[in-house]
Amino acid sequence: MRAAVLHAPGDVRIEERERPRPGPREVLVEVTAVGVCGSDVHYYEHGRIGPYVVEAPLVLGHESAGRVVELGEGATRHAVGDRVALEPGVPCGRCRECRAGRYNLCADVRFFATPPVDGAFAEFVAIHEDFAFALPDGLSDEAGALMEPLSVGLWACRKAGVSPGDRVLVTGAGPIGLLAMQCALASGATEVTVSDVNPHRLEIARRTGATRTVTAGGDLGQADALIECSGHPQAIGAGIRALRPAGTAVLVGMGPEEEGTLPLSVIQGRELWVTGTFRYAGTYPAAIALAASGRIDVGAIVSGRFGLDEAAAALRAGRDDPESVKPMVLP
Amino acid sequence: MRAAVLHAPGDVRIEERERPRPGPREVLVEVTAVGVCGSDVHYYEHGRIGPYVVEAPLVLGHESAGRVVELGEGATRHAVGDRVALEPGVPCGRCRECRAGRYNLCADVRFFATPPVDGAFAEFVAIHEDFAFALPDGLSDEAGALMEPLSVGLWACRKAGVSPGDRVLVTGAGPIGLLAMQCALASGATEVTVSDVNPHRLEIARRTGATRTVTAGGDLGQADALIECSGHPQAIGAGIRALRPAGTAVLVGMGPEEEGTLPLSVIQGRELWVTGTFRYAGTYPAAIALAASGRIDVGAIVSGRFGLDEAAAALRAGRDDPESVKPMVLP
Amino acid sequence: MRAAVLHAPGDVRIEERERPRPGPREVLVEVTAVGVCGSDVHYYEHGRIGPYVVEAPLVLGHESAGRVVELGEGATRHAVGDRVALEPGVPCGRCRECRAGRYNLCADVRFFATPPVDGAFAEFVAIHEDFAFALPDGLSDEAGALMEPLSVGLWACRKAGVSPGDRVLVTGAGPIGLLAMQCALASGATEVTVSDVNPHRLEIARRTGATRTVTAGGDLGQADALIECSGHPQAIGAGIRALRPAGTAVLVGMGPEEEGTLPLSVIQGRELWVTGTFRYAGTYPAAIALAASGRIDVGAIVSGRFGLDEAAAALRAGRDDPESVKPMVLP
Amino acid sequence: MRAAVLHAPGDVRIEERERPRPGPREVLVEVTAVGVCGSDVHYYEHGRIGPYVVEAPLVLGHESAGRVVELGEGATRHAVGDRVALEPGVPCGRCRECRAGRYNLCADVRFFATPPVDGAFAEFVAIHEDFAFALPDGLSDEAGALMEPLSVGLWACRKAGVSPGDRVLVTGAGPIGLLAMQCALASGATEVTVSDVNPHRLEIARRTGATRTVTAGGDLGQADALIECSGHPQAIGAGIRALRPAGTAVLVGMGPEEEGTLPLSVIQGRELWVTGTFRYAGTYPAAIALAASGRIDVGAIVSGRFGLDEAAAALRAGRDDPESVKPMVLP
Repeated sequence: MRAAVLHAPGDVRIEERERPRPGPREVLVEVTAVGVCGSDVHYYEHGRIGPYVVEAPLVLGHESAGRVVELGEGATRHAVGDRVALEPGVPCGRCRECRAGRYNLCADVRFFATPPVDGAFAEFVAIHEDFAFALPDGLSDEAGALMEPLSVGLWACRKAGVSPGDRVLVTGAGPIGLLAMQCALASGATEVTVSDVNPHRLEIARRTGATRTVTAGGDLGQADALIECSGHPQAIGAGIRALRPAGTAVLVGMGPEEEGTLPLSVIQGRELWVTGTFRYAGTYPAAIALAASGRIDVGAIVSGRFGLDEAAAALRAGRDDPESVKPMVLP
Repeated sequence: MRAAVLHAPGDVRIEERERPRPGPREVLVEVTAVGVCGSDVHYYEHGRIGPYVVEAPLVLGHESAGRVVELGEGATRHAVGDRVALEPGVPCGRCRECRAGRYNLCADVRFFATPPVDGAFAEFVAIHEDFAFALPDGLSDEAGALMEPLSVGLWACRKAGVSPGDRVLVTGAGPIGLLAMQCALASGATEVTVSDVNPHRLEIARRTGATRTVTAGGDLGQADALIECSGHPQAIGAGIRALRPAGTAVLVGMGPEEEGTLPLSVIQGRELWVTGTFRYAGTYPAAIALAASGRIDVGAIVSGRFGLDEAAAALRAGRDDPESVKPMVLP
Repeated sequence: MRAAVLHAPGDVRIEERERPRPGPREVLVEVTAVGVCGSDVHYYEHGRIGPYVVEAPLVLGHESAGRVVELGEGATRHAVGDRVALEPGVPCGRCRECRAGRYNLCADVRFFATPPVDGAFAEFVAIHEDFAFALPDGLSDEAGALMEPLSVGLWACRKAGVSPGDRVLVTGAGPIGLLAMQCALASGATEVTVSDVNPHRLEIARRTGATRTVTAGGDLGQADALIECSGHPQAIGAGIRALRPAGTAVLVGMGPEEEGTLPLSVIQGRELWVTGTFRYAGTYPAAIALAASGRIDVGAIVSGRFGLDEAAAALRAGRDDPESVKPMVLP
Repeated sequence: MRAAVLHAPGDVRIEERERPRPGPREVLVEVTAVGVCGSDVHYYEHGRIGPYVVEAPLVLGHESAGRVVELGEGATRHAVGDRVALEPGVPCGRCRECRAGRYNLCADVRFFATPPVDGAFAEFVAIHEDFAFALPDGLSDEAGALMEPLSVGLWACRKAGVSPGDRVLVTGAGPIGLLAMQCALASGATEVTVSDVNPHRLEIARRTGATRTVTAGGDLGQADALIECSGHPQAIGAGIRALRPAGTAVLVGMGPEEEGTLPLSVIQGRELWVTGTFRYAGTYPAAIALAASGRIDVGAIVSGRFGLDEAAAALRAGRDDPESVKPMVLP
């Protein structure tokens, strides 16, 4: 099969690889759609993300969907031909974190496109059948691939405890911020303010339901919950200061530094809660239901489509085009 | 001023009463819309609800809205002329329950139309300014009055922990069930099944978003949460059995008996949570925001309009007309 | 190896069986202590518990500890010679319940002494290494076996949300009730009332910290949380009525009937929470830490010791001796 | 009556003041014990704490207990002669925060010794009867006064979600840290590590139950919860890094700066929760029950006793004596 393989920063090659064989309880999936994530771009540009270093050729891509083409031994959940969205991280299922339902924090997770585990910029991938989720007829394969970033947004809303009637502030209108915003609306938020520096992204925010958009640096108003998706130190500080007493700040966006300055006296005086997210857990069924019911339009963030041979171009789209939001690779 | 006063079961008289004077931090409100609640009907028919006995003439009505016409000493939250929805129970604010945020369980609450406290079937009522909530332009006075039953439904959804992507079962499609159903949808539920014996009510459920309706006794499917609004023993049992492991049942409807039979081995084997609701706490701002944003259409349950002089007819509407859902009194 | 095998109600035979071989990531454990649980007694007397029917010869016993004697392939968590307590249920780790941290509700769990899975009334058992927990020096093997019923009590306290300063009511002073009581104290409860019909058990309750004991039927006082361990309909009803507003009732004890009568109007009027427990999840580390620190004295409930050959006598101890609480089998 | 009045930084004068009169539902209390809090010392030394500025002569002291000597109109909760501990902040009971049970965040609270509200370094104070709590016989007046800092520690443990079997890290062993440590133990924590620079305070920590003490800067180990009571930037950072995945950090100690640097990538990668505390809500009944039951020894932190005339010396004790922890004023 063909795969797009990262050999070094900036060096992605289309190669022939052996088609994976589905192990016990795995399914083999013919990949039909893969989203390009900021982490893919980061590996492509820098060859590492913090402690994760690309030391051997790596297949990128972890936002994927496709069609089941073969069943491993004992796999019964899907039939050959089923269209599925893939949850890209398979945890150990036994450790303290897994037992507590926090399997996203499992130290032994095998996660697509995280060294040394290959991802989905390939014609085929194998995955445990319980991490493939059937797609209803109303959802395209492309939408299926986007269940992954939607999961990130949904997880952030869960952490933020977004409830009906809430005022939610989303700082940063990249793919995650835009989807988190739609999740906030689907959770019943009645005021959702989105801030960013990029007017094109704010326009998408308005088109998909934001009740107010603000150019970064402007007045953010007051909010019950902050979903911080920019990673910018100023947005973090301003966003936290915008929270009402006992409000919650969820830091999703990763900044360039390991540390950051927070307004501690505000956190204490208002008894705010601050947390961060790392991937997600248990979100796929809800994400699929929300998209299938029409509550969330994931397609609104798609900004370009590329063949597998054009994977490198897809990885460079964000740098080349200020209006790029979510490039898709369609193998 | 005129008021509709209950003297004995079936005996409501229109009388002249002295207009109340707003006390410190109270506002005087000219009542423009009052919903008829099942509890009003119960007092009208039986002169009591459990331990609450009508021993002196009582003004019924606790779902109300109107216009501020006078400010008591120190009241600053509203201006004369403001349209407001009234939260009808003012708690002590000091007891254990109030301090814990459960002010609906305050033993010293003064609640409209609960003996010996008069209600809102009158031209004017006085209430603490913090229990009057400004109505935005888009919401009618009638909608304002319905913030009360909407609060009951919203409180049930909060107790049920309805989350995006959930499957919710609402048994009983009276005013509370119908509004609880809309609250579940506004909370992100993607499947909402409503059951009732009354086809007219199921038709309203479908019109306002139910994804499925079932004639009582039919197959309820499986649900993450049950919001039981009928009080019927069979619905309670069947509803609880329909819950998935770790699901939640919220008993809102009151049955004729103090006790009821529950499937304990199911509750234990699936570790279900069962609770009940008593009024609501802290719901008005969210209820108003949801209705004002168009997420919830409270007007869909209004089935008739009566003048203050016709209060008795309004109280009898449910008995006289099988299609009656929520009669309104407009003083 | 020798094992005590249940062939039919009342028919337990000591037989030679093949010593199990530890599979991948399993450890083989030489069993040194096994507690007799009410469920073992129920299988012994009736050959079934609800839907679980003993259709083939079954080894009973699921409260066990012992010494690691062999490591399966890839097992690295323990060394040969380590003393371990065994968590007797190994879930699938993949299903919806497992992913949510509710692995006790996993439909595919393999649980000791639950047909068709054999238990620990045997010289050796094999188990996944992550379900064997190292015992600190201060804890005996017998105490290690009792981490299982202690887990049941701890889980009940977690569900009840027992907090420092709470008043807790424990109805039923069998092994679970007595350990739940100690867990409540270890959770900070400052008043713990225990009720039972058996004066010997109430005496143990007093000796292990109960601040008050009540003969069943007596005045229960008021409580923040009820931990119901008797399964008696009257205790359930009286216990729930003893709860303060917003209190929690946890039904641990299983009654003879599938259904039971609850005071619904009390549950509604006070907004109580009622739930039940099914085994436990994630309790072993805390149970071991509490016992090792001396907060909980599990040995206080041991009422008799039997050899493996005397397993039948151990299973009959509760019937034969009113002062029997927790018989132990020491293979 | 006599009172110790702060006129300017360093200038406390003993003056004659008019004895307060208890208003409706208030009680007049003869003060018998008052603890000196760090905030009193800060006002004494600097004349302000952040936005709270001493602009008129102010009576300090908010950790107090005494004897009821007179009842205001309608006060029925206490009898003349009752010994009571005083919760020093009386909130409005009506605002959004009060209704939600977060009355410590009420913007309209009247709190002792916070400008312009006088405190308890006086012979008499008046307070709403519901904020005076009866002291059981086993608790001294001095202990009663210390229910206030104990409440701070208990509140921190509640926010931290300390549960049986937890490992808790307390950084900073001042009065709050020492009491929070005891609260953690009373909540079931089985490992409690305390760090500080002061060996005398670490000695008190060991004496009152710390399972491990560390000189600040040393290895903190790993913890489920951090209760940060020092306000030192290094302790905050090191404490947060010591948390296990999904652990909670509660910032109680206030540092010199409004902002502080936190390890954001750790908060994100481990999905930690960080919050701060501002006073407490609903803690007095539990605090009294814990102290009365002997679970918590508040007396262990008392380091000196002063008459009302010596209030200035009490306020300087911490500066003058490195072994001072909690000076008490006994009017």
